[in-house]
Amino acid sequence: MRTYLIRVAYDGTNFSGYQVQRQGERTVQAVLERALLELHGHAVSTVVAGRTDSGVHAVGQYVSFESDRDSIPEHRMAAAITSRLPRDVAVLHAQVVPQGFHARYRAVSRHYTYHLVVAPVQLPHLRHYSWAIPRHPDVARLRHDAEQLVGCHDFSTFAARRERDANMVRTVRYAEFLQEKDRLQFAIGADGFLWHMVRSIIGTLIAREQRRQRGGAVVESMGELLLARDRSRAGTTAPAAGLFLQDVEYDL
Amino acid sequence: MRTYLIRVAYDGTNFSGYQVQRQGERTVQAVLERALLELHGHAVSTVVAGRTDSGVHAVGQYVSFESDRDSIPEHRMAAAITSRLPRDVAVLHAQVVPQGFHARYRAVSRHYTYHLVVAPVQLPHLRHYSWAIPRHPDVARLRHDAEQLVGCHDFSTFAARRERDANMVRTVRYAEFLQEKDRLQFAIGADGFLWHMVRSIIGTLIAREQRRQRGGAVVESMGELLLARDRSRAGTTAPAAGLFLQDVEYDL
Repeated sequence: MRTYLIRVAYDGTNFSGYQVQRQGERTVQAVLERALLELHGHAVSTVVAGRTDSGVHAVGQYVSFESDRDSIPEHRMAAAITSRLPRDVAVLHAQVVPQGFHARYRAVSRHYTYHLVVAPVQLPHLRHYSWAIPRHPDVARLRHDAEQLVGCHDFSTFAARRERDANMVRTVRYAEFLQEKDRLQFAIGADGFLWHMVRSIIGTLIAREQRRQRGGAVVESMGELLLARDRSRAGTTAPAAGLFLQDVEYDL
Repeated sequence: MRTYLIRVAYDGTNFSGYQVQRQGERTVQAVLERALLELHGHAVSTVVAGRTDSGVHAVGQYVSFESDRDSIPEHRMAAAITSRLPRDVAVLHAQVVPQGFHARYRAVSRHYTYHLVVAPVQLPHLRHYSWAIPRHPDVARLRHDAEQLVGCHDFSTFAARRERDANMVRTVRYAEFLQEKDRLQFAIGADGFLWHMVRSIIGTLIAREQRRQRGGAVVESMGELLLARDRSRAGTTAPAAGLFLQDVEYDL
């Protein structure tokens, strides 16, 4: 019996998110566990580093599970699973980790990117993988806003309401914008994220910038918004399509 | 009555190419002409700058047609059509051009890009928009090969067989590689392209590079391949998914 940690990539477009919720929904977890069932001849339960919502993509999701298929060499495991998966999911890497390793509890940091495209009309081939905004934002102002999120804060302002009772404190390590012509990428890393946190943050950052572009006033700083701990003071949640789980780090 | 030239973008994944061929196939032309029919109340025939194959994308395809809907202002035409299109096609721009303007005959140059990603396992969210190659190619060698295509040549070596009797001479203005980390983009512009020409060229360039990486010999130069005018000397046709029609230029 060995414990595996696998790196999984998926196109979230045709999935109802990562986790099995209602019977009959197509989820990444369901297709992954079906592949593991085929490979093992019995049900294999999995632990995921971070659930993602419907339409959210991953190039670096991590999943752990126990395997009794010791006859499969470690370097063959990724391909053995991928060959049993539909084309919108792939296992990029598989490694044997210490017995009982838990992909969620042992994760020390998570990294997301959010992709924006500046286009008055969304380009069809990017519609599932980015959020189209009509005008070029002032990236220096976006960066100034984003910097205030870095550090250890209560992120209630940027969490979905249903998480309200949990511990809302997270440590954001970086929150940066990269620009290349009409493409804009927001990269953020933290010890953990609240539900909808990245999409609420980017939705707020873009709403503030659009208000400024229209000549409107942006009274509160991002730091003040954080201190308010009030979701109603933040902007809307950005579309799922632009969000990618890039990587999860472990202290192996 | 006015003649319009429109710039069209589409995600080619779920289309059987641009042009209507067999009854019942979903083509870009069919959905575009259905939208124009709805808008005009009668059938409107269209002329396209360049047909694209199944799975090929466009951000700058051009289509001309005659419109008797003079009540629609020129600056509203693009949105009026797009609102009647499925989400995988959009009209980015529409302009009134001289009466009888023909989107194919009046085109003076066409510009394509081909997208490659270096990845041992294809990332699912890129599977419809790029070709995955397992190893980093030597970009300097690719550039050296590609440069030999620039100029006025007979491109029979890189044309699909069924075009064999036509005039195979085209003038390639540039053929360049751009690299950014694991992404590689091949950009090529010419007065016109033969059927499958871009995909045959990139398939050949990558096959030559992979042969060199395996320590094999590449005897003929690209210039010699061109002179041979023999499709069997070139490499395979690269997958449609990586190809984008970027733009078409007109002498208005």
